Amino acid sequence: MSFAYSRTIHFADTDAAGVVYFARYLSICHEAYEEALAAAGIDIKNFFSATGVMIPVSRSETKYLRPLVVGDKILVNARPEFITENTYAVRYEIVKLGKVEKLIAEARTEHVCIDAKTRERQPLPHHLAAWVNQTTTQV
Amino acid sequence: MSFAYSRTIHFADTDAAGVVYFARYLSICHEAYEEALAAAGIDIKNFFSATGVMIPVSRSETKYLRPLVVGDKILVNARPEFITENTYAVRYEIVKLGKVEKLIAEARTEHVCIDAKTRERQPLPHHLAAWVNQTTTQV
Amino acid sequence: MSFAYSRTIHFADTDAAGVVYFARYLSICHEAYEEALAAAGIDIKNFFSATGVMIPVSRSETKYLRPLVVGDKILVNARPEFITENTYAVRYEIVKLGKVEKLIAEARTEHVCIDAKTRERQPLPHHLAAWVNQTTTQV
Amino acid sequence: MSFAYSRTIHFADTDAAGVVYFARYLSICHEAYEEALAAAGIDIKNFFSATGVMIPVSRSETKYLRPLVVGDKILVNARPEFITENTYAVRYEIVKLGKVEKLIAEARTEHVCIDAKTRERQPLPHHLAAWVNQTTTQV
Repeated sequence: MSFAYSRTIHFADTDAAGVVYFARYLSICHEAYEEALAAAGIDIKNFFSATGVMIPVSRSETKYLRPLVVGDKILVNARPEFITENTYAVRYEIVKLGKVEKLIAEARTEHVCIDAKTRERQPLPHHLAAWVNQTTTQV
Repeated sequence: MSFAYSRTIHFADTDAAGVVYFARYLSICHEAYEEALAAAGIDIKNFFSATGVMIPVSRSETKYLRPLVVGDKILVNARPEFITENTYAVRYEIVKLGKVEKLIAEARTEHVCIDAKTRERQPLPHHLAAWVNQTTTQV
Repeated sequence: MSFAYSRTIHFADTDAAGVVYFARYLSICHEAYEEALAAAGIDIKNFFSATGVMIPVSRSETKYLRPLVVGDKILVNARPEFITENTYAVRYEIVKLGKVEKLIAEARTEHVCIDAKTRERQPLPHHLAAWVNQTTTQV
Repeated sequence: MSFAYSRTIHFADTDAAGVVYFARYLSICHEAYEEALAAAGIDIKNFFSATGVMIPVSRSETKYLRPLVVGDKILVNARPEFITENTYAVRYEIVKLGKVEKLIAEARTEHVCIDAKTRERQPLPHHLAAWVNQTTTQV
């Protein structure tokens, strides 16, 4: 089961080549990730101070298949999966909407849960583990 | 009459001070402007090549009243008004949604219509003039 | 006396219109402001936690005169001035370098010093006041 | 042989977690790539219109090892290498300068040369091939 996030491409997403700037794809994927967490009832505004952990991105990769231009409507499908008890990945598909849907890009981020002070690896907080699990097991 | 654009604040909008980066307010306002044009039937993807004009921002100002953090839901009200036959302004109010709505920021951009090649001032293309006029006269 | 900051325009600064995105001018000005503080011996990394104050931007305005494209070399002149004992402004001129120097944009930001907890206005910390003063009196 | 690009971290690079936003690492790497091309005498402002090709990023990956904060001084080492006659990669190492240099992140981008109109794959323009080759053979 994946979370679907829709979005329109704006001028701020593009560069002088006329299309979306390549690094921006990861920002757009992260928006989808944030919305997926919010939809799962995780209040990202207070989550980190409340749990004492940080969950930085430790790795990312993106495969760019087709360009996007200003005004394009896209859908980002985000799907988490456990790697270990303190790391997980999120896979993203960016699809351009229209008469014919087109796969624009695929991305993947890895996240590692660490103590905000010691930076030692920590098991995921319960709510977050449930979010990763639920979507993993329902695939 | 103003156009209302809603938006959630994401990590990419913020900086290390923990709140939305000040220059980002203008990007968010420009998103609202693009959505207002799209809602008025103006296809920004092809508008400039089709009409042979460019309409750069010639001036902007922003008044920052309150901070915004990740997860905040905002509404941007955008309202255009003619200045001369080849210039117009757009006024923006950014409001944070919640139990009590709060005015977060006010902004204003000025736009000038020029020929894409000669850079001489041009009257606004018909559709765009109609958009500025409609909203102006309905206030 | 003003602080001079030089910079090259990169793809990430531009949008699909082929030139620097209008909101980016303020980011570029803020880079110059940060470098000016650093050059004055103010360690922005620790300044705010050390002094217990925040100094958000309360107002900004920009006048866009000419476009900038990828590869352009620019100089940003930044010059602070006191408004009151707890507010100051910074004026910026963005100049394009080359055979003939061209004024590209002018901007101005206003900053207000507040207590990080109570958000009450505070006099500027000594070092920062000295920076504003020095440049003001040496004009 | 790799090209070295130095840079200071600014507020606009960071997010509310207090460190550089993960997608920003790729922008910073692309700045290094643009500077490396410029240093090799390739005028990116006119390169694409002059040669009739586009060279979009087709793939990127980043490994994030340590955080960066506002004011950090970094060095980005960029090193190109051929993959095929119409594709090449650039490898990046981001290093934090200081008493002890620390490896902050590693990234890699893949680039494919296509005709700007037909989008068919093309051999690299001469100057660009020379840049990729020179650095490759001098390793």
